[in-house]
Amino acid sequence: MKTKIKIVRFDSSTQIAREDWVVKEFPLTIILNGQELATLLCSPKDLKYLAAGFLFSEGFIETKEEITEMTLDQQRGVVEVQTKDGKELTQESFLKRVITTGCGRAIAFYNPADIDGVKEVDSDVRLSPLDISNLTKEFQRRSAVYRETGGVHSAALCDTEHIVIFEEDIGRHNAVDKIFGKCLLEDISTSDRIVITSGRISSEILFKVAKRQIPVIISKSAPTDLGVIVAQDLRITLIGFTRGKRMNVYAGEWRLQS
Amino acid sequence: MKTKIKIVRFDSSTQIAREDWVVKEFPLTIILNGQELATLLCSPKDLKYLAAGFLFSEGFIETKEEITEMTLDQQRGVVEVQTKDGKELTQESFLKRVITTGCGRAIAFYNPADIDGVKEVDSDVRLSPLDISNLTKEFQRRSAVYRETGGVHSAALCDTEHIVIFEEDIGRHNAVDKIFGKCLLEDISTSDRIVITSGRISSEILFKVAKRQIPVIISKSAPTDLGVIVAQDLRITLIGFTRGKRMNVYAGEWRLQS
Repeated sequence: MKTKIKIVRFDSSTQIAREDWVVKEFPLTIILNGQELATLLCSPKDLKYLAAGFLFSEGFIETKEEITEMTLDQQRGVVEVQTKDGKELTQESFLKRVITTGCGRAIAFYNPADIDGVKEVDSDVRLSPLDISNLTKEFQRRSAVYRETGGVHSAALCDTEHIVIFEEDIGRHNAVDKIFGKCLLEDISTSDRIVITSGRISSEILFKVAKRQIPVIISKSAPTDLGVIVAQDLRITLIGFTRGKRMNVYAGEWRLQS
Repeated sequence: MKTKIKIVRFDSSTQIAREDWVVKEFPLTIILNGQELATLLCSPKDLKYLAAGFLFSEGFIETKEEITEMTLDQQRGVVEVQTKDGKELTQESFLKRVITTGCGRAIAFYNPADIDGVKEVDSDVRLSPLDISNLTKEFQRRSAVYRETGGVHSAALCDTEHIVIFEEDIGRHNAVDKIFGKCLLEDISTSDRIVITSGRISSEILFKVAKRQIPVIISKSAPTDLGVIVAQDLRITLIGFTRGKRMNVYAGEWRLQS
């Protein structure tokens, strides 16, 4: 996910040639039923999870069983997916695309009733500020690529005590899609699970986690107003600006208990 | 660009209801010659600049003169643009979209020869680490919304001494598009100018500045490997990780002099 390149480090009076790590940016083209769907710029790891998660987030598939074949050619940067229904892309499906703040994912804008598979999240999960503090500590420890290159987003799926899946990508949406893609392909339940993301929480991320019925989303960063509104509407607990045991709860505070 | 909402601040033992600022997320639908082109999730400011900059970056327009009419209805979140050629969208133009790490903008991937209007940047501009340090200091001072809400990217167009245009947006691509949109609509030259961005420097941002023949791009954040390769190919000076007078120069170091 990273590579060494030559740089020149300038200071007020000196300049030194040296090597430094930078994060890799990899173009992955997704071909669905023989038609080019999209090219994602991403980190070259767990690309099948990314493709599956992307297709799920975009509403092209709902279950693993719909995928009849998935072939990754990492050399060419192409993943080919065949689905049972052999769905063809229409201009409609492209015209509906929403260019988002984060990753240009297609979510027909904002009317929950319009969005396939998005409904209020029903979950009795409860957690404490201490749980959240422990989870975010574990999350920071795992985010090693970021610390070395400064260029990667992380996302994790957790229960109230530990991280279950951890993914990294240069795109914050890709990192979340990799998680849900892995859940889809490996039959890992997302029920009552918690998502942590290193990125800002905007409305599109909320729709993404809502589609998987995730009751709690946590970030050290800030949410947008629309992110907060969507979280409130969909009964998702939205926690931002986590700093140790201190945090801002923007929605669904009833899921927090000491 | 921001709004106050009710939050609950949790600590290990206390919880306090209070108000806090969050950044606004606004859906702007761009209609080109009567056809819905895209919905951008953005900060609701300078939306005409955003629309013009987006259309330029996407290759739909090259000059202001091609726009015969532009009407913004901020209430509905719609900007309607008419162009001279009355270009109709084809499925082709949608199939070519690239879902990027940052903002889902359409850049047919990566072969500079394929990219309309992108060629090597020819500029004799030179600058010193002190110039860069002063510019980035001014840039930080101007980035006020970010400091209050933690959710906004900034971008600036500068000469070697001062900021000429400054824009903010929840999307890092949008912030850059607003700058170039303003340049387009108000006939501001971009020749020999410098761009500063608060975000990561990936290949798409490089293509965007290359289209405007910008010779220098600066960020306090990291570039990707592809960003570095594109900068080298297009003879753009790429400076990252600026910390006062200390900085990493990833490409085009010949434009730096003490």
